[in-house]
Amino acid sequence: MKFSINRSSFLKTFADVSRAISSKTTIPVLTGLKLVATTAGLTLTGSDADISIEATIPEDSEDNTLTIQEPGAIILPARFFGEIVKRLPEDNMTVTIEDLQATITSGASEFTINGLDAATYPQLPEISSDRSLTLKADTFRQIIGQTVIAVSTQESRPILTGVHISIQNGTLVAVATDSHRLAQRSIDLEGVTTDADFIIPGRSLTELGRMLTDDVTETELRIADNQVLFTIGQTSFYSRLLDGNYPDTTRLIPTTSNTRIEFSAPALLAAINRASLMSHEGRNNVVRLNIEVGAGQVTLFGNSPEIGNVEEQLSFNALEGEDLEISFNPDYMKVALQGLGQSTIEVAFTAPLRPFTLVPSEDKEHYIQLITPVRTF
Amino acid sequence: MKFSINRSSFLKTFADVSRAISSKTTIPVLTGLKLVATTAGLTLTGSDADISIEATIPEDSEDNTLTIQEPGAIILPARFFGEIVKRLPEDNMTVTIEDLQATITSGASEFTINGLDAATYPQLPEISSDRSLTLKADTFRQIIGQTVIAVSTQESRPILTGVHISIQNGTLVAVATDSHRLAQRSIDLEGVTTDADFIIPGRSLTELGRMLTDDVTETELRIADNQVLFTIGQTSFYSRLLDGNYPDTTRLIPTTSNTRIEFSAPALLAAINRASLMSHEGRNNVVRLNIEVGAGQVTLFGNSPEIGNVEEQLSFNALEGEDLEISFNPDYMKVALQGLGQSTIEVAFTAPLRPFTLVPSEDKEHYIQLITPVRTF
Repeated sequence: MKFSINRSSFLKTFADVSRAISSKTTIPVLTGLKLVATTAGLTLTGSDADISIEATIPEDSEDNTLTIQEPGAIILPARFFGEIVKRLPEDNMTVTIEDLQATITSGASEFTINGLDAATYPQLPEISSDRSLTLKADTFRQIIGQTVIAVSTQESRPILTGVHISIQNGTLVAVATDSHRLAQRSIDLEGVTTDADFIIPGRSLTELGRMLTDDVTETELRIADNQVLFTIGQTSFYSRLLDGNYPDTTRLIPTTSNTRIEFSAPALLAAINRASLMSHEGRNNVVRLNIEVGAGQVTLFGNSPEIGNVEEQLSFNALEGEDLEISFNPDYMKVALQGLGQSTIEVAFTAPLRPFTLVPSEDKEHYIQLITPVRTF
Repeated sequence: MKFSINRSSFLKTFADVSRAISSKTTIPVLTGLKLVATTAGLTLTGSDADISIEATIPEDSEDNTLTIQEPGAIILPARFFGEIVKRLPEDNMTVTIEDLQATITSGASEFTINGLDAATYPQLPEISSDRSLTLKADTFRQIIGQTVIAVSTQESRPILTGVHISIQNGTLVAVATDSHRLAQRSIDLEGVTTDADFIIPGRSLTELGRMLTDDVTETELRIADNQVLFTIGQTSFYSRLLDGNYPDTTRLIPTTSNTRIEFSAPALLAAINRASLMSHEGRNNVVRLNIEVGAGQVTLFGNSPEIGNVEEQLSFNALEGEDLEISFNPDYMKVALQGLGQSTIEVAFTAPLRPFTLVPSEDKEHYIQLITPVRTF
């Protein structure tokens, strides 16, 4: 096996594939990068068993200078090989494999590193195109960003570490909850007739979202029983799916409310950040919101017995309903507000111990977040 | 005590003073920021017992809007107070102290935090102007950067954690060594008649160097028995000095050499970085240089039994003397080359087990670095 390639082209593709390679894995072969050279091009594969990424650099591509002199395959230590390629002196490098040993040359520099037999690398799943659909990249990146923020990071209920995606009658609904808060985003997919229902690990979506950069216009999604495959140009992104039944979240979302406030999301976020300075020092990490509709006052309180306290009159666009005093974890609120970006939002409360909701004012139908308050008495 | 101030003016001065405040200190009062308001202005003090920094924001300064409504003094929790000031909603803030409690208001936001009695703060040393001199800020920053790189980080010989500065007959010599490598920088000081000899902790110099930003033109240095004071504009930087005798380093620097090579420092650094990729994986972290004067070849080798090896023909500007094979820790060489920047350098060797030297080609008299090789047989 022998090929020459422009280093920066290689590194760009390597960066994508590396997302799936963990140095912490207990399976030695998965710390490696699989390289396969064929007449069609050079294929890089990385995997951590949950996520696998395979990308091909075609030989005739114009923006790199790949030349395959001799086909073949090898597994090289990924992190190490990447470090070498980054530091080579010339724009181009040549990789020659002989007897599981790779020689990497560039200018006057010559590295020799040991590889592993490519045949020992796990086979990627075959996923048929029977159940497939195409998603717009920017929309899907937004859906990911607005829902993964609510997945659980605790392995005690593994199913909650995933995002539940269901596609039915041309509508996609993505929902995530860690049982303290919930985020649900829906979109109408034009011309999609495929139905699907799966739970994908939050981490898979986060990594996928990072690959959906501005220059990507769409991604094809193929669904099998326990795997999904996203195709982005020459790159295939495989993720395992979570097994089990996702809790029915529809009944958690309140349909009525007794107090409603319209805020600017960035202004509210800044106030929450200030209040949480105090609550983070306390034992409970709780802030308190006091809503006085008659007086037209919404006051946020944060307190730490050791350090001190903070009190702030919040500005708002609109306020209606009943007076209320409610306490909550400001970190959930921060994350929720970050998901809402620069928009104007409506926060709707039912009662001091009932979950409250946040929706963007300009589109209350397609995105909702829910936060469970904290009992402080 | 009460004052109002523009937040960004305050934060700029606070950032300087914070360099001396450690959250890890075991002396509770030193986690605090001392604030003293007088008719002259607002003085901020921070200290970690080794370094103390005091800076005054004058009331009549034009680039801030300080108003002292009532003089007084307090110690506030530094990290926390800084976090609050950074997050306040308006450009200005008002701080009111009553009964050791500070109320910080800005817009609709009001923080109350507990402080400590300013009288409990350690007194800064009084340093007379008897022994003082003025240094150009850019030159002194360069001297710091070129010598602190060689101080010891190990507390086993505390004296080696400092830089030895001696000023005699108008020449300043700064030297640092951790016994494996050494860096010595000298400059001629015009019009300086004060003599001095002291050992200042490397960490003090590093922090001081960060305060000698491009807009600083000079710093006044005052020397007492166990303290120095650097004055930068309205800021006083105190450092304790190290007690003891610094080893005589002059006899360590070789005066003759048998092999000399002229390199471009950045090109050599890049090659050392590549070779150390391998040596870092091995047990000894050693690279080997093979110099063949007759063949006109200088070859660098790095090796890791598990991973592989690297070999590189180094390019050089000039090569003379005897053949040599020498092994050394590439990390010492990296740091030394970073200190030499973009220059052309001369590396001079005596024997495989004798220290070798690096000097900039354009000025061989005022800066020298020395690296002790490693025995590999």
